[in-house]
Amino acid sequence: MTTESKPIKNPLTLGVIGLGSMGRGAALTALARGVTTWGLDLDPAACDKVAQAGGRIAADLAELAKACDAVLVLVVTATQTEELLFGEQGLASQLKPGSVVICSATVDPTLPPLWEARLAARGLWLIDAPVSGGAVKAAAGEMTVMASGKPEAFAAAGGLLEAVAGKVYRLGDQAGVGSTVKMVNQHLAGVHIAAACEALALGIRAGADPAQLYEVICNSAGSSWMFANRVPHILAGDYQPLSTVNIFVKDLGIVLDAARKLAFPLPLAAAAHQLYLGTAGAGHGAEDDSAVIKLYAALTGIDLPVAASATAPKASP
Amino acid sequence: MTTESKPIKNPLTLGVIGLGSMGRGAALTALARGVTTWGLDLDPAACDKVAQAGGRIAADLAELAKACDAVLVLVVTATQTEELLFGEQGLASQLKPGSVVICSATVDPTLPPLWEARLAARGLWLIDAPVSGGAVKAAAGEMTVMASGKPEAFAAAGGLLEAVAGKVYRLGDQAGVGSTVKMVNQHLAGVHIAAACEALALGIRAGADPAQLYEVICNSAGSSWMFANRVPHILAGDYQPLSTVNIFVKDLGIVLDAARKLAFPLPLAAAAHQLYLGTAGAGHGAEDDSAVIKLYAALTGIDLPVAASATAPKASP
Repeated sequence: MTTESKPIKNPLTLGVIGLGSMGRGAALTALARGVTTWGLDLDPAACDKVAQAGGRIAADLAELAKACDAVLVLVVTATQTEELLFGEQGLASQLKPGSVVICSATVDPTLPPLWEARLAARGLWLIDAPVSGGAVKAAAGEMTVMASGKPEAFAAAGGLLEAVAGKVYRLGDQAGVGSTVKMVNQHLAGVHIAAACEALALGIRAGADPAQLYEVICNSAGSSWMFANRVPHILAGDYQPLSTVNIFVKDLGIVLDAARKLAFPLPLAAAAHQLYLGTAGAGHGAEDDSAVIKLYAALTGIDLPVAASATAPKASP
Repeated sequence: MTTESKPIKNPLTLGVIGLGSMGRGAALTALARGVTTWGLDLDPAACDKVAQAGGRIAADLAELAKACDAVLVLVVTATQTEELLFGEQGLASQLKPGSVVICSATVDPTLPPLWEARLAARGLWLIDAPVSGGAVKAAAGEMTVMASGKPEAFAAAGGLLEAVAGKVYRLGDQAGVGSTVKMVNQHLAGVHIAAACEALALGIRAGADPAQLYEVICNSAGSSWMFANRVPHILAGDYQPLSTVNIFVKDLGIVLDAARKLAFPLPLAAAAHQLYLGTAGAGHGAEDDSAVIKLYAALTGIDLPVAASATAPKASP
């Protein structure tokens, strides 16, 4: 297993809060690399998977905070992160001095510096550490981390961060830089998925074969990481979510809100956000983000590829 | 040389009309691969380079048409192509019956089928064959061709087309499919360059280091072929054109016009086109297409990287 190919002996104990696809991958990777790991999630099924791999499951935040030297907070939103850090019985009031909070939700880059200051007042460190790579890479220990924070924070918990990831970019000595780089990545990822849907839909309307388009574009200057990754979902007619439309409603919303504060115009990201909103509004918010092409299909009547299972002849009753 | 690594013996004679960066690369590649090649261009300097490599230079269309079995028309616009094909003394009235015209300008995909029919009435064949890869790949014999046309056209001139390219995709038996696939590629390429400029400019405004952004994004899900290829121009402060802003004013214009005929909405391509128009309107139309970032700089006051030569201390007089 890839997760076992990079053994790291670490005497410190890691907590992971949020055992969804990314957090579970991080926890299982740390366990496979020999790190004592505690997990916490509202979903018992998510906890079970980590427990089965040798993880300890905390009854509550206080138990996790007491046991851990660093806590990776891998929830979805800034609001969830703030509640876990500064809510009643939050980590800020429970962790031992010198402990490190590693915040990985995609958030407005102006927030982590505020959190860093509030934690510092308690003698705690912050690493601003958004992640990239998706569920498959997280499970394989190949997640990319875009990290920034004070040197003391990295000295204390940099090893634990390395233990959950494939690649840790250390981007600066202040919280916020990591989230800024993640914001730029999400801008591009969001625009590229929507562009892939728009261009593929146009090609279908104009009479080209979508599988042929995929092959040619993947080997041409019009390719993107997202085009290569997402168009196969469309060709297979499979919109089971790996990452949902709603995630980009949220993430491009963060990008646009942050840019608005900076009085910075983003015509492309704004147009892409409208497409995710339209797709969500049409009822596809919980589907794979490649379902943006369904908005073009609804507007123009093009036929999209359908799943093989949807076209297979039915067995006699 | 890469162009000599794929020797093709071809008894047929090729004509190349338009000896700009792409056409010159095609002509030199054909010559290096042993194909008897004639060139024609209004610019004597462009002709000289082909002549020095062993090419024959035609005095006019009539001389070229008389000498060649297939003619590659590598001009910029549909209007130029139509003038060469059907204007007074055009190829349609000069070529020997059974000859093949290979049209490679990026054009509205509805045009090549019309040209195919008009040429067929004269006993001539058409291959709809837009190209991709840029000047560097063309010179190295690594140009990609998105080709469609009748089997008889490929039987007569497919070998000559292979002789100028690195990869020929044969996309169908009707003219128009090649141009449709090229249109989809140009849609994506145009949106991706503009998105790269918008996202990089946002990152700079938010305080990230542009070189660091480049490295992280190239290894993340936000990457695109264009991001990886064009951002180095911005980091170097070098807007010497490899492909100009004006090319995408034209090409996204073709995409939008073709989609309008199909009543097909393209919100992302339309927003990107406005950015190229704005950049051209601000006086940067003849610069490298990465100069779209100058529009964001003008709007927001961000500092872009400057060329090393622009910052070097001046020698004493």
